[in-house]
Amino acid sequence: MRMYDLIKKKRDGGELTEAEIRFLIEGFTKGDIPDYQMSAFTMAVFFRGMTDRETTALTLAMARSGDVIDLSGIDGVKVDKHSTGGVGDTTTLVLAPLVAACGAPVAKMSGRALGHTGGTLDKLESIPGFSVYMTPEQFVDSVNRLKVAVIGQTAAIAPADGKWYKLRDVTATVESVPLIAASIMSKKLAAGADALVLDVKAGRGAFLKKFEDTLKLAETMVSIGTRAGRRTVALITDMNQPLGRAIGNALEVKEAVETLQGRGPDDLTELTLALGTEMLVLAQVAEDATDARRRLGEAIRSGRALEKFREMVVNQGGDPAFIDDPSRLPTAPVRVVVEARASGWVDAIDGHELGDVTMLLGAGRRKQDDEIDHAVGLVLRAKVGSRVEAGDVLCEVHAARPEDAAALTERIRAAFSIGPRPPEPRPLVLRRVSAD
Amino acid sequence: MRMYDLIKKKRDGGELTEAEIRFLIEGFTKGDIPDYQMSAFTMAVFFRGMTDRETTALTLAMARSGDVIDLSGIDGVKVDKHSTGGVGDTTTLVLAPLVAACGAPVAKMSGRALGHTGGTLDKLESIPGFSVYMTPEQFVDSVNRLKVAVIGQTAAIAPADGKWYKLRDVTATVESVPLIAASIMSKKLAAGADALVLDVKAGRGAFLKKFEDTLKLAETMVSIGTRAGRRTVALITDMNQPLGRAIGNALEVKEAVETLQGRGPDDLTELTLALGTEMLVLAQVAEDATDARRRLGEAIRSGRALEKFREMVVNQGGDPAFIDDPSRLPTAPVRVVVEARASGWVDAIDGHELGDVTMLLGAGRRKQDDEIDHAVGLVLRAKVGSRVEAGDVLCEVHAARPEDAAALTERIRAAFSIGPRPPEPRPLVLRRVSAD
Repeated sequence: MRMYDLIKKKRDGGELTEAEIRFLIEGFTKGDIPDYQMSAFTMAVFFRGMTDRETTALTLAMARSGDVIDLSGIDGVKVDKHSTGGVGDTTTLVLAPLVAACGAPVAKMSGRALGHTGGTLDKLESIPGFSVYMTPEQFVDSVNRLKVAVIGQTAAIAPADGKWYKLRDVTATVESVPLIAASIMSKKLAAGADALVLDVKAGRGAFLKKFEDTLKLAETMVSIGTRAGRRTVALITDMNQPLGRAIGNALEVKEAVETLQGRGPDDLTELTLALGTEMLVLAQVAEDATDARRRLGEAIRSGRALEKFREMVVNQGGDPAFIDDPSRLPTAPVRVVVEARASGWVDAIDGHELGDVTMLLGAGRRKQDDEIDHAVGLVLRAKVGSRVEAGDVLCEVHAARPEDAAALTERIRAAFSIGPRPPEPRPLVLRRVSAD
Repeated sequence: MRMYDLIKKKRDGGELTEAEIRFLIEGFTKGDIPDYQMSAFTMAVFFRGMTDRETTALTLAMARSGDVIDLSGIDGVKVDKHSTGGVGDTTTLVLAPLVAACGAPVAKMSGRALGHTGGTLDKLESIPGFSVYMTPEQFVDSVNRLKVAVIGQTAAIAPADGKWYKLRDVTATVESVPLIAASIMSKKLAAGADALVLDVKAGRGAFLKKFEDTLKLAETMVSIGTRAGRRTVALITDMNQPLGRAIGNALEVKEAVETLQGRGPDDLTELTLALGTEMLVLAQVAEDATDARRRLGEAIRSGRALEKFREMVVNQGGDPAFIDDPSRLPTAPVRVVVEARASGWVDAIDGHELGDVTMLLGAGRRKQDDEIDHAVGLVLRAKVGSRVEAGDVLCEVHAARPEDAAALTERIRAAFSIGPRPPEPRPLVLRRVSAD
């Protein structure tokens, strides 16, 4: 088999066989296939696309390019959740204990912040003492005892994806639906869950701008999961603004606690319940969506969800005192407000831009080994649909130094788009995609 | 300027500016732009194509990536000729002295054999003593004195093209009309001629299989030449069989002499006259095509063309004795014939296949530094349209060892396609393309 022939076949619109795709991914991972052939192939995929059969074979080959986690030691149906996008996306912090409190095992591997997106691991590390490192044995044991543990994803998960993504990033080949789908799903399949709920972001703040591309991405991922023998459901959700009010590590932990107490922001609460409903049904601890939603509500109202969060924090070495006293979390020394210049209705908030701003405040990473300031970030005081008068506070900035906040004030203000009329209300969940 | 943005612009169907194209070619030639970005860009060009403006800018940037030959020391309008394809294509050996004998200066830089195609330099080197090396001063002086010299192309001509071609060759991006056009024309523009006649091969044996692609290639090259200020004409010619009867270095030299004596194969003679006509008109030594054709015929009949060839050989250190006594050329020790198995009419002869066979006999190079055997090759005894009976000779094989010929007999026989009916006669020149 020659890489030249695979490039030519894809270039001319042919369908690659499973053996050809394995050859491609194994050769690329080992370094036998040079980057210049891989990038030509990738551009051909950009133009020609991939069939569902090719995409599934690609995903499986990428999943097998490194460690494949064995969660068979954990009782029950293990359901994982993944979100594309994710500015101010605190859902994992809420969902993991909430779903576990309802009886579904949550063996979650998460990532770190990079660029404008936050990372669950960094958020958890703003809790004093909390560790995201465990041996595989400790991980399995923790989930069997508590039903929940959240740890760091090892570099050995789907190394083909990491290597390929770096190449795609510099050759303008990121925006390909089958390649995005394979990238996400290869890591999820390697992480070993039995079933999968996907939160696919649509709209202005999302990665893919056109709804049809977003729908195609959701359908492709559901098809891959199903063909790979994992029950998979995707919710396409609106991302016309950041989720919740907090953006930044400790600020989002505080918001997660409030949401587990039943007093979180409406959109974060609603999305958590929608995703949790799918997870409970897939985990077979709820009979149907109605039963699932009832159980989730009860877990919050009864305090069992918050209690589960406390157990998880203690199990991973964290000091749970912050749950009752949020001032125990890292706190930024500087707090300034950004005010509206004009009156009107907020009709969109640019999450990508606010994600960038938060990174510049120190809450995220420009490069992989940048240090993070867990205390800094933003708290939105107006959301889409809010009526604001000139002078009203749009956003609180939590910064390390006054000059940091001052330098970013204008960008933050400009991220709020204010119109003359109230915006049309939009549902949070735009579409549900499943194999059935 | 970032290469990433140029890839993305081309990927999305945009038109690159002249400055962007200069950045691309200069960066790639210097090694600042890595191969993996260049190959992604090239695949995007494969799908999106290039406008005439882009292709011209690309060609000029490539022509300027190395030495640009200054032929201004040569009197008169210097006309160059280029052929795409070229199995058994002896035209340069005939055209150079023929056109020079009619008064047009021929300052010709030629290449060497590679793969299934032969090279004019190797053919000339089968003449005892002949040298293809000259200083630029000797070259200019030779053309001023004799009107003709044929020398080797230096590696410093359009190095961007050489580097890029190697990359295209392993990334399935060779078959792109604008890139083929830019590759050919960049070398021609750098070689310094004032005007250019292109012989673009069409049909089964040609590089591009579809006539519309061949026409597009011819039109693109004429457009580039014209935009670059060089009068350019292209003839699209049939390549349903190798040109003439000889394939192999000394065998083609012998055939060239016969053609200059007016007793060459019909197709080689006709193509030489058609290309020569265009050259004389562009060189402004003939008033029009009729006048040009008359002058060419007269130069052959009078013996002046053959005399010019003799002068050229002597000027470049060769022993001209072979002109009157072809046995002075290298001669292969083994001569065997390949006979037809069936009766019928020859309706096509696969030139690519016979080019490969000739290379395997030792007349060409698989790799750049392989040694060449000037004596070996093929002589076709049947051509398209010939009636053959089973047992008739199709081809003579001139080989170094009997086993070389034996190993290739079946492939040679299979290259002759024999049908039940005489094939439709096809004109040799299918289309003339010019800017007028």
